[in-house]
Amino acid sequence: MNTPLSTDPHDRLGKPAGGWRARLYAIIFESDTAKGRAFDLLLIGAILLSVLVVVLASVQPIALHYSEELEWAEWFFTILFTIEYVARCLCVRRPALYARSFFGVIDLMSILPNYVALFFPAAHVVLGLRILRLLRIFRILKLTLYIQEYSMLGDALLASRRKIFVFLSVVFLIVFLLGSVMYVVEGPENGYTSIPVAVYWAISTMTTVGFGDLVPKTDTGRTIASFMMLLGWGILAVPTGIISSEISHRRSQGATPPRICPHCLSGGHEPDARYCKDCGGALS
Amino acid sequence: MNTPLSTDPHDRLGKPAGGWRARLYAIIFESDTAKGRAFDLLLIGAILLSVLVVVLASVQPIALHYSEELEWAEWFFTILFTIEYVARCLCVRRPALYARSFFGVIDLMSILPNYVALFFPAAHVVLGLRILRLLRIFRILKLTLYIQEYSMLGDALLASRRKIFVFLSVVFLIVFLLGSVMYVVEGPENGYTSIPVAVYWAISTMTTVGFGDLVPKTDTGRTIASFMMLLGWGILAVPTGIISSEISHRRSQGATPPRICPHCLSGGHEPDARYCKDCGGALS
Amino acid sequence: MNTPLSTDPHDRLGKPAGGWRARLYAIIFESDTAKGRAFDLLLIGAILLSVLVVVLASVQPIALHYSEELEWAEWFFTILFTIEYVARCLCVRRPALYARSFFGVIDLMSILPNYVALFFPAAHVVLGLRILRLLRIFRILKLTLYIQEYSMLGDALLASRRKIFVFLSVVFLIVFLLGSVMYVVEGPENGYTSIPVAVYWAISTMTTVGFGDLVPKTDTGRTIASFMMLLGWGILAVPTGIISSEISHRRSQGATPPRICPHCLSGGHEPDARYCKDCGGALS
Amino acid sequence: MNTPLSTDPHDRLGKPAGGWRARLYAIIFESDTAKGRAFDLLLIGAILLSVLVVVLASVQPIALHYSEELEWAEWFFTILFTIEYVARCLCVRRPALYARSFFGVIDLMSILPNYVALFFPAAHVVLGLRILRLLRIFRILKLTLYIQEYSMLGDALLASRRKIFVFLSVVFLIVFLLGSVMYVVEGPENGYTSIPVAVYWAISTMTTVGFGDLVPKTDTGRTIASFMMLLGWGILAVPTGIISSEISHRRSQGATPPRICPHCLSGGHEPDARYCKDCGGALS
Repeated sequence: MNTPLSTDPHDRLGKPAGGWRARLYAIIFESDTAKGRAFDLLLIGAILLSVLVVVLASVQPIALHYSEELEWAEWFFTILFTIEYVARCLCVRRPALYARSFFGVIDLMSILPNYVALFFPAAHVVLGLRILRLLRIFRILKLTLYIQEYSMLGDALLASRRKIFVFLSVVFLIVFLLGSVMYVVEGPENGYTSIPVAVYWAISTMTTVGFGDLVPKTDTGRTIASFMMLLGWGILAVPTGIISSEISHRRSQGATPPRICPHCLSGGHEPDARYCKDCGGALS
Repeated sequence: MNTPLSTDPHDRLGKPAGGWRARLYAIIFESDTAKGRAFDLLLIGAILLSVLVVVLASVQPIALHYSEELEWAEWFFTILFTIEYVARCLCVRRPALYARSFFGVIDLMSILPNYVALFFPAAHVVLGLRILRLLRIFRILKLTLYIQEYSMLGDALLASRRKIFVFLSVVFLIVFLLGSVMYVVEGPENGYTSIPVAVYWAISTMTTVGFGDLVPKTDTGRTIASFMMLLGWGILAVPTGIISSEISHRRSQGATPPRICPHCLSGGHEPDARYCKDCGGALS
Repeated sequence: MNTPLSTDPHDRLGKPAGGWRARLYAIIFESDTAKGRAFDLLLIGAILLSVLVVVLASVQPIALHYSEELEWAEWFFTILFTIEYVARCLCVRRPALYARSFFGVIDLMSILPNYVALFFPAAHVVLGLRILRLLRIFRILKLTLYIQEYSMLGDALLASRRKIFVFLSVVFLIVFLLGSVMYVVEGPENGYTSIPVAVYWAISTMTTVGFGDLVPKTDTGRTIASFMMLLGWGILAVPTGIISSEISHRRSQGATPPRICPHCLSGGHEPDARYCKDCGGALS
Repeated sequence: MNTPLSTDPHDRLGKPAGGWRARLYAIIFESDTAKGRAFDLLLIGAILLSVLVVVLASVQPIALHYSEELEWAEWFFTILFTIEYVARCLCVRRPALYARSFFGVIDLMSILPNYVALFFPAAHVVLGLRILRLLRIFRILKLTLYIQEYSMLGDALLASRRKIFVFLSVVFLIVFLLGSVMYVVEGPENGYTSIPVAVYWAISTMTTVGFGDLVPKTDTGRTIASFMMLLGWGILAVPTGIISSEISHRRSQGATPPRICPHCLSGGHEPDARYCKDCGGALS
């Protein structure tokens, strides 16, 4: 049974057994028929265009000049995606499971803000959620080409997650303590109006971002800031070292278990070796 | 004998032999009884809340509006931590040793600033020390889960400390010399009012922080600054390389437990060695 | 047949069989005769001087004071490069192929802007294209000394291109989503006038550039910015890890010449292998 | 013959054969006698104090208040170092060679600026050179403890110098071209007053420094800047990768030639191994 929606091999949402629902399912959820592929391409185009409409509507001169056209386009895509959402709900065997799945929620987020803003004009802030439509592209692309690289990078990050958590907790403690020190040293008169603001400044300094909206003015403050910059610079080396070593380790291991020669029991054979490099015996 | 407080295996502070002091000790310092665990959780909550009070008290609008509530909360936690500090002193066998230990000093720092500020209102600067309360969390968490990652990262930094010291001394010399050059080139009229200020600017430039509160205005100054940015960029690679190589080295060595020769008891044998490299005896 | 222009071993443009065209070709395109070397040195000098003229003409005080001298120099180099371009077209066997080649286009770009600006004064923007003359140096230097390092770095980047593409696509998605969030949170009143502007800010924050022309003013915005800075800092480790691991891999492989099995002619054997991993025959 | 001054093993400056000059030489240039060590410690103290005087004289409030004391201190150290310089010239066998050596020039630079400024008051700019006194510390410390780390890092940089040169030449070309593009796009009205200024901005952007004194104001400029920031971010990975791989390579090789077992001809033995790990035979 084909399972284009789910990432795991077991079909969780379910393709209907037959009839118009099965045909609709094949078009919407699958991409191995001509109609399915055409639907995918059209949907990618619609998503990109609708995101473009959201972006253009945020640019003041364009928004004022083409406000009517942009609103028409916005409602066109909203109704289009609403029809698509209803169709998706109709053609799966278990609509409730689809609606609660990651992409089901994203699909709903693509259309809900417009209806909410229509009935509760005060809540126009939710319109920002429409930008999440962009995430829908990932379902269609399915990233068949680059899936290996994605999972390799993801695995490397996952394997380093404990080291990174430890590292981040130490960084957070340093940033919190040094930020508080700067709040005491510089004080509200130099812009460090509260501890959260000082911590924000400490993060921007130790990550070497350095916006410059807040800067130390006192000599003590500048000395502490100099120390923080050098410290942040040195600390920056740690996550890079963790990830570098993880990726190097992965590529040298090649994700295969170590191979042992059954004749001389030597190890360290390459993944593609057919004969033992030490005794010349055949490797299993 | 259980030693939850000390990081080394030998109990330095000492659990009393019996009576109410031993029961109190089990609750406060140990965490293998139900009461001990409850005490730990309550203390973590109290610490986090008291840090939150300090942070909120630094935010002007909140401090003005809730000044009385915050002061009450602050004194509530101060008295709570005072009782806890007295209880800790009472129930250990050697209170003087506890008071001089790292966490003993941190515990005292959590309460002392409030009493100092009460009797010497002019010394309210010491209130900033209260933020050190956060460090107390580390005792309770004991970081059993992540202790291995902490020590691994710590060891890697420790093993690289000579290289990092050499690197920092070279960086400091470069920063001091180039900062002085910029002081001569740009001068006080462009904001480089003294050599310390110019060195502060040089550090913020070479670490790629670049606040922008001081910027070169003359052509010569901009040329030197461009050179410094490129140099700092290249130099940034060095600590990363040191740490990367150290972590890689550690993980390639640490994949297997250390091997000890059964004949001469020497260690440090390679994972694939069949004979002891020191005495030539067969390794098991 | 000598092929100084093309990077591949096959002569695509073609040296004429004989006569004055062959002699001209030897001077202009080849560098193994005394005249050819002299021409190369003269051309490098002319290119550097003409780039200097363009740079000087952009500096207001110099441009105002020496406007006539600079214009004369500009036309001198334009006519010089025009003669050279015509000569190059004349002496190759297939001028159309030369004109469409990479360096042919660059050569044309060096002279065309001046003629365009002469006849269409409004199009003086194209004068900026003259700076591309600098690229012509690469043809002459031919980088014989450093070609190995160039191709090594290029190969490392090329081999990592899929990982880097995956990485950049994830970064772009994060930057787009977080930029949109900041547009909603901070809004036009704090300078985030549109989604493209907010995305520009998000890129400058996550790459740790931090110009400071746009900065978050609200508490929510500063919290999100702090998160973005830490995230960008951590993410920065990924491309470094990819490139580091690639270069390390290349150098550990490249330390020895590739070993070929004399029996089955398979390659890629490890430096310490004694038997072919593919056929089991002894390696020399 | 002892050679404390020169870094190479051959004594170039020469210790006199005997008499008061040999005794003076032993005190000034050597550090294996009690007097020599005392002289070294006094000189380090004098250098640090004289650098402190230069730094303090650059801080306006201190300079105004203590101008007389600072001038006295400055002349005290100048005369002290003059006496030392004369003594050094007197006690070496070949004073001309000493005067032309690296440390000889630095020694002269420590005192000359004051005399020049005394006779030519207009040339007070040369006073900035006094900060070079700091370099003199390096001679005395001789860095016996950390010399291995210095030379290791130096060797790693030296071995990577061709790769780093190639990298910097590509970076310089990119920075020059993109800076010129920004000069055309943004123009003098947005602060990009000339190509050198635009190149300065491009360097500050691609190295992720981002001062913020110049920022793109047009939409096209911001798009190009976004691209440059991402590019600079990716490029930053390259030097780190080069240095990381070089340091890793050096530590895995351990700077010793590979050891081969004379009995079984196996390789890859650790530097401190006394017996072959494969056959147990003694290693030479």
